[in-house]
Amino acid sequence: MLQGQSIINGQPKQGSGSTFTGINPATGDRLEPAYSSASREDLERAASLAEEAFPVYSRTPARQRAHFLRHVADGLEAIAAQVVERAGQESGLPEARLKGELARTVNQFRVFAQVIEEGSWVNARIDLAQPERKPLPRADIRSVLRPLGPVAVFGASNFPLAFSVAGGDTASALAAGNPVLVKAHPAHPGTSELVGQAVSRSVRACGLPAGTFALLFDAGTEVGSLLVAHPAIQAVGFTGSLAGGRALMRIAAARPEPIPCFMEMGSTNPLFVLPEALKARGAEIANGLFNSFTLGVGQMCTKPGLVYLPCGEHAEMLVAELRLLVEQAGASVMLTDAICRNHNTGMILRQSDERVEMLAQGAPHAGSGGAYAAPALFQTSGGNLLADPDLAREIFGPSTLIVRYKDTQELMALAESLEGQLTASVHGTDAEITAHAGLLAALERKAGRLIVNGYPTGVEVSNAMIHGGPFPATSDSRATSVGTLAIYRFARPVCYQNFLQVALPDELKDENPLGIWRMIDGQFTRDAVAAPVAAPVS
Amino acid sequence: MLQGQSIINGQPKQGSGSTFTGINPATGDRLEPAYSSASREDLERAASLAEEAFPVYSRTPARQRAHFLRHVADGLEAIAAQVVERAGQESGLPEARLKGELARTVNQFRVFAQVIEEGSWVNARIDLAQPERKPLPRADIRSVLRPLGPVAVFGASNFPLAFSVAGGDTASALAAGNPVLVKAHPAHPGTSELVGQAVSRSVRACGLPAGTFALLFDAGTEVGSLLVAHPAIQAVGFTGSLAGGRALMRIAAARPEPIPCFMEMGSTNPLFVLPEALKARGAEIANGLFNSFTLGVGQMCTKPGLVYLPCGEHAEMLVAELRLLVEQAGASVMLTDAICRNHNTGMILRQSDERVEMLAQGAPHAGSGGAYAAPALFQTSGGNLLADPDLAREIFGPSTLIVRYKDTQELMALAESLEGQLTASVHGTDAEITAHAGLLAALERKAGRLIVNGYPTGVEVSNAMIHGGPFPATSDSRATSVGTLAIYRFARPVCYQNFLQVALPDELKDENPLGIWRMIDGQFTRDAVAAPVAAPVS
Repeated sequence: MLQGQSIINGQPKQGSGSTFTGINPATGDRLEPAYSSASREDLERAASLAEEAFPVYSRTPARQRAHFLRHVADGLEAIAAQVVERAGQESGLPEARLKGELARTVNQFRVFAQVIEEGSWVNARIDLAQPERKPLPRADIRSVLRPLGPVAVFGASNFPLAFSVAGGDTASALAAGNPVLVKAHPAHPGTSELVGQAVSRSVRACGLPAGTFALLFDAGTEVGSLLVAHPAIQAVGFTGSLAGGRALMRIAAARPEPIPCFMEMGSTNPLFVLPEALKARGAEIANGLFNSFTLGVGQMCTKPGLVYLPCGEHAEMLVAELRLLVEQAGASVMLTDAICRNHNTGMILRQSDERVEMLAQGAPHAGSGGAYAAPALFQTSGGNLLADPDLAREIFGPSTLIVRYKDTQELMALAESLEGQLTASVHGTDAEITAHAGLLAALERKAGRLIVNGYPTGVEVSNAMIHGGPFPATSDSRATSVGTLAIYRFARPVCYQNFLQVALPDELKDENPLGIWRMIDGQFTRDAVAAPVAAPVS
Repeated sequence: MLQGQSIINGQPKQGSGSTFTGINPATGDRLEPAYSSASREDLERAASLAEEAFPVYSRTPARQRAHFLRHVADGLEAIAAQVVERAGQESGLPEARLKGELARTVNQFRVFAQVIEEGSWVNARIDLAQPERKPLPRADIRSVLRPLGPVAVFGASNFPLAFSVAGGDTASALAAGNPVLVKAHPAHPGTSELVGQAVSRSVRACGLPAGTFALLFDAGTEVGSLLVAHPAIQAVGFTGSLAGGRALMRIAAARPEPIPCFMEMGSTNPLFVLPEALKARGAEIANGLFNSFTLGVGQMCTKPGLVYLPCGEHAEMLVAELRLLVEQAGASVMLTDAICRNHNTGMILRQSDERVEMLAQGAPHAGSGGAYAAPALFQTSGGNLLADPDLAREIFGPSTLIVRYKDTQELMALAESLEGQLTASVHGTDAEITAHAGLLAALERKAGRLIVNGYPTGVEVSNAMIHGGPFPATSDSRATSVGTLAIYRFARPVCYQNFLQVALPDELKDENPLGIWRMIDGQFTRDAVAAPVAAPVS
């Protein structure tokens, strides 16, 4: 079933670039088949098909697009066993996690189907004509969100399903009415191809233009760079490293016509523990923290990588609990050999830094070979971190850095010295949370999501979720890549002045045929536009 | 009353850079006083005061911010006569236009006051906790828009009031809760200072931090460049040239922390006339077009600079009407000598281009001196324009280029060859509009606003207005700089997970104390969150 080929025009396409394979990170074994990198011509063809597909797909009624999204969801469920097996081989992630991730991926498609079927997301606004207004009459003015054009999506290494070929970026871009070109992550090509085939089958089954979806493989970074530079591409969705995201942002900004970029580039996710909470439930926090920073072998964008504890005996007790948990833990396989090597480099640098103490480390992997990492616990002082914020740099893996703060003043200074984050968490008693409004206010400027008495891992796909935050967490703090608001990244408002009813999009027609919420002359309503009242004959 | 100084910390501040004065474009005379360019230290001080003001101003309740916006509106009305007089001297714009522009400026502040007082713009969303959900419970998740941080605003040359110191960018950024630093346009320093003083007085009278607003003068571009690069600045609003906007976009993209840029950089605003409409009301269209492309001496972002006419006798009649109108018109004073010189260069290039015919020109200015321009009418063929799209480059001034198209096929090719536009207009009978769905669809991809049987000049400040469009019309097609949607440029969503009621922003508190529209578990409502129903005792 796996062809080792890109998918263009709904068909497998043998590339002419260098070849690569998936690699089982647990063993280092190559996984068949070999994948050929897409050529420049392949990319041109995929882009021009997407461009051709746009006028048709963007005008496909929302009800049909919703049907398509549900078809994809069903198609993924139908191949779940195969996808989970292959993803396990390629990523080293356990079956239960991958089953959960597949369910989430499927759910995302169904959630966006619901959003576009309900239809009110388009922000339809109608300002009725005022022909009698003085000094000048007002024309009839209406606006609604319309899709941007073909979107480039980059699969992430750490979520081979939920942030990859049919991940949240793809689901939201398709939901908004945009064709999608996915650049597969080379760490899980087989998973990508299986999922890409399923999406392609749904495109065909739903009678959509073949250019609505394409999947491109590349051993390196050339296809991705060319994709972001391609004039047909109108926006970019990316989850990955800061270096990779930043490089693509530069390409997008240097285009003759710059395009919006939505890069999610990770975060250290600071977690603050206040003294009374520590006293009341230190052991519980130790457990929650350990589970959170080791979840998925610490390869989560939302892993809490900085834990701020006060000084004193209660903190010592929490640290002792954490040490025990870390020391009892064994090594687990990481996603790829490259991630494992980066992790090891980060660990060596941190271990050799005299300002940081390594408090505990889990048992190393017993066997030889494979990309394994054991949990680790580090500690430094607030003073050290304030003196050199670079101490806090993200290590992608199952470790965290405890930062001991002296007092509230130092706590505030530490909060204010943070760079942009996806999340920031605070553990405190009700009285402490109430008393620390200043801390929460400072963190609000730093992060997209603030969490009280919880842990940042586990990102809910819901209407209020924000998985975003100030740079360098993401390229655009005004966007989210998780939750229903993610659809807004891939749409732009278009205004229609003095239009005939027949020429208006359905969302803006007087009678409100889609029954959506609209703003009419400043009022939210699901009503139709009232028929004009005839002027009384005088 | 005019000091010739920047306004920092609510006080006039003598700059140390080079000095300049306003110049009356009708006479070339310098206008007192001399203005001193802000120094780098002035900018640092203004930026750090804005940064200090942010935590206070961003948490000032919307009701108080609305009061402040109305205070600014009242303050501007109180000095209307003085502002209109000075703006007339500095811009050459007639009194009636400036009175109208002042009214619009005042109105914008009042409209945004209304928007934030009503309060629903913040897109409050609440997903209630589901503690019993399987396999995992759902936390309580809420999100709301929060201000970005200090915003840099660049005054425009062509709207000394409505797109300048207290223009739409300033009004919307302040409304969203951001301090504003304005870089005044050097063409109207006195107008800028008068308006800046009024805003400053309102900041003081309303008890807001002095850093909420600052005004910086500069003879050149250094202060603007430094402002966009400054780490305190979190977003940029700009109306001006493509070259200027693009230069600032590059600076913003190269920052260690890139920031969103909202540049409105002009447009040629194509206007298509279909054959039957031409037949039915050619003379009326000639009049409407002439008024539109000569409005404000053609110095409008929305000036129709490209007019597509079919071949044939009816088009000849319209052209003849237009020629007459142009030939009967006299020269008018332009905004600045520099704009006039650019205009003259553009005219010479177009006149010397053998692919373009000059059909008519108004009478030149009789006197000597002054920056005057007369209306002009050019014509080329669709074939010429398709062969060299650069023929359509914007000439900022009172001329337009008629493009004669052979047939519907050429019309479509011309529409598809357009670059990004603020507006695109189509004149047609009802039957023609209905039959040209393909043309409207093509234009939808090119422009932010589509107009049927109307003219693009005259941009309504309303809820549905979009004054934006694909690059190079603007830097971000997802935004508008006119209308209430402009506020969304300067806010970002923040998510609150598992928060105590007391720590939530008012917009997200259970009882809905502000009475705003919210999305609760996917449903729009103004209701409070219902008290949880106690589980029945079994």
